[in-house]
Amino acid sequence: MIRHLREAGDLDAADATLILDTARELARLTGGREVKKLPTLRGRTVVNLFYEDSTRTRISFEAAAKRLSADVINFSAKGSSVSKGESLKDTALTLQAMGADAVVIRHGASGAPHRLANWVDGSVVNAGDGTHEHPTQALLDAFTMRERLGRLAGLNVTIVGDVLHSRVARSNVVLLATLGAKVTVVGPPTLIPPDIASAAVSYDLDAVLPASDVVMMLRVQTERMNASYFPSAREYSRRYGMDGARMRRLPEHAIVMHPGPMNRGMEISPEVADSPRSTIVEQVANGVSVRMAVLYLLLGGK
Amino acid sequence: MIRHLREAGDLDAADATLILDTARELARLTGGREVKKLPTLRGRTVVNLFYEDSTRTRISFEAAAKRLSADVINFSAKGSSVSKGESLKDTALTLQAMGADAVVIRHGASGAPHRLANWVDGSVVNAGDGTHEHPTQALLDAFTMRERLGRLAGLNVTIVGDVLHSRVARSNVVLLATLGAKVTVVGPPTLIPPDIASAAVSYDLDAVLPASDVVMMLRVQTERMNASYFPSAREYSRRYGMDGARMRRLPEHAIVMHPGPMNRGMEISPEVADSPRSTIVEQVANGVSVRMAVLYLLLGGK
Amino acid sequence: MIRHLREAGDLDAADATLILDTARELARLTGGREVKKLPTLRGRTVVNLFYEDSTRTRISFEAAAKRLSADVINFSAKGSSVSKGESLKDTALTLQAMGADAVVIRHGASGAPHRLANWVDGSVVNAGDGTHEHPTQALLDAFTMRERLGRLAGLNVTIVGDVLHSRVARSNVVLLATLGAKVTVVGPPTLIPPDIASAAVSYDLDAVLPASDVVMMLRVQTERMNASYFPSAREYSRRYGMDGARMRRLPEHAIVMHPGPMNRGMEISPEVADSPRSTIVEQVANGVSVRMAVLYLLLGGK
Repeated sequence: MIRHLREAGDLDAADATLILDTARELARLTGGREVKKLPTLRGRTVVNLFYEDSTRTRISFEAAAKRLSADVINFSAKGSSVSKGESLKDTALTLQAMGADAVVIRHGASGAPHRLANWVDGSVVNAGDGTHEHPTQALLDAFTMRERLGRLAGLNVTIVGDVLHSRVARSNVVLLATLGAKVTVVGPPTLIPPDIASAAVSYDLDAVLPASDVVMMLRVQTERMNASYFPSAREYSRRYGMDGARMRRLPEHAIVMHPGPMNRGMEISPEVADSPRSTIVEQVANGVSVRMAVLYLLLGGK
Repeated sequence: MIRHLREAGDLDAADATLILDTARELARLTGGREVKKLPTLRGRTVVNLFYEDSTRTRISFEAAAKRLSADVINFSAKGSSVSKGESLKDTALTLQAMGADAVVIRHGASGAPHRLANWVDGSVVNAGDGTHEHPTQALLDAFTMRERLGRLAGLNVTIVGDVLHSRVARSNVVLLATLGAKVTVVGPPTLIPPDIASAAVSYDLDAVLPASDVVMMLRVQTERMNASYFPSAREYSRRYGMDGARMRRLPEHAIVMHPGPMNRGMEISPEVADSPRSTIVEQVANGVSVRMAVLYLLLGGK
Repeated sequence: MIRHLREAGDLDAADATLILDTARELARLTGGREVKKLPTLRGRTVVNLFYEDSTRTRISFEAAAKRLSADVINFSAKGSSVSKGESLKDTALTLQAMGADAVVIRHGASGAPHRLANWVDGSVVNAGDGTHEHPTQALLDAFTMRERLGRLAGLNVTIVGDVLHSRVARSNVVLLATLGAKVTVVGPPTLIPPDIASAAVSYDLDAVLPASDVVMMLRVQTERMNASYFPSAREYSRRYGMDGARMRRLPEHAIVMHPGPMNRGMEISPEVADSPRSTIVEQVANGVSVRMAVLYLLLGGK
């Protein structure tokens, strides 16, 4: 098994599949009322090193680590010595010296997890770095697709929205290619990267819906909304929002995904968000299982 | 037993008494030097979902949950996806999907715990919602009265201050009525609700002191002090503050309570706060016991 | 054993040596892969009461307490009832009532740990109070010197920088005197206290290097840099910064210490910080061991 999960490209098909299989097994073991906690990582320390606020992702990792009996230390970089100008390297050496077995890092700069991995003996898990990657999100998305649709190979997955700035999209494109799914990215031309590899490109959502097994709606970053490259909210929603009418053009079995938190009424309508095709709540639950699997495998739990 | 504790009215006399009895038993079991932690809720996850800062209440619930061996996850809504506009419903679904067995919620909007309870399978505990209720505060107050005075039925309890805006007062009025105590609320006319049920009303603190078994001083919210409906600080303190002279007009056995944190010199004088009649520190200790009992009973611990 | 660690002067040589010996034993027991957690403080509650941000110190205490199986509750005074004007005394009584067995306090006011110790039954550990003391930092520094150089008695320790405002320097001067080392403080005349006891004073770093077994560089508080008593950054670095040239004037066996976080290029050059003489990372690791020993001994662990 690999030691770090810095980006989706760290995983070959065997590793990725092992994570998904392990996540299923851990969900089975801890999902019932009786056994909710496994002693696997007792005595291990997982540090959540968050340079950006993300309560949702932090809590998911925290719940995953605690369900494996690890100790969790939350390190919010705001107001810390980091804001006094401490370098990422010195922070890394500090955490390692304190005995961190794994560092889960969320950082505004793309590539920060790679740099961190050079400086620590423990495992590094990327929990989102700039506009680069968010690999555990891609793993939980793949897990959710496989649970719902029974397979990944050959699935047609359509990713819709601001692909250019989305670390979720980037990790999904890489991981889904590794696992044999076919990805199409859809969005306004200004929000699709020119050089995207291993994915087809479309600017017309309605055209690709009938052949989609999965439609993954990206969150609109409302702070980007007034940028010149961004359509108006009304225009965006009209052309790229998933509403009831569009949902009904999907194949019977198709699912609609969203990494959360949603802008209801913007990229997804309440009707879709609350429909049985929506996997949004399952994605959250699966996130804990997948992160348990990642920590378990990276830390060599037995 | 009930599943949620959204307001004091969720409890009938039998439920409330069971909580108080359980709290006493748990205090007995964990108060000594040797056994401080019970394995009752091992593997259960309690989420503290705090939309308002309240370190004191959060710590009390955290200590209670940990003493029962539950895992605790603190979710401060500040700077979280909530501030990105996520709805309470989506937050609720997220916490549930992550496996929260209980959600302890502090929220600025009255009624938020009721709405939350519609969306989660786990238990909801209200840790203060707007100006509505704070039921575990009322339970710890009742516990404290019973420990000090041996009973609740028939006690004369006087609640003094800004009753109109006080969730502590509201929960106490309801719970004490359920448990058979007689409540009188006292304060400036502008700060007493016109339609208060199950409590007598007085505007004259000195008149009610000689017949009071318990006097509960409410905290003055200093941010309200300049509002037109609020007397001047000096006037408030003179008419409704508890000082040594007033304390000596109480019956020998009477106690003085305060939910904390106190404004010493405003609604309570240092002489009273530090006197043997004051139960302020016991209230804090009892708060942990009562919250242990609530979590234990709601989560079906055995 | 003492009950509180409010300042380095609380420790006589026997107590200090017992802490260092215990720290080494605990490091041995928990440093390996197999046993990382000891059950010693199971059921005990350690509260981190931080009135100033210090993620680094807070995490070190949190890791230490968790490695001894204690429950840890973090209490950041920002935005808490403290900011509503609650006194330190009332906060102390609250924490005690909640069952805190130890309170680790970081406070902007010199002497706060002493006051706290008057009001709680549990143990108080000073994690930095104003410009007064930071005794566990001195203990980890002494531990590091002893590990590297085999002894403390008779060592020549040179402390360099803004000694006047440094709680690290103050605690080190006291503890090292207790343990028999000889301390020289070096810095600009405006930054050396006029009445320093049990240490020699020099204003010339280069003169004292050849006889130094240990050089401890203090962190420059950059917010002080524009004060009239502070030299310019360039002047400070030229006269009191530790760079490669100065390092080579030290005896072969001498070490360079820094409490972190470093201002690389200001008080210490990257060449020195990353050299084998530098103990900066060991200091962090030793900090966890020493804090384990302090908590273990103060709480009477067996």
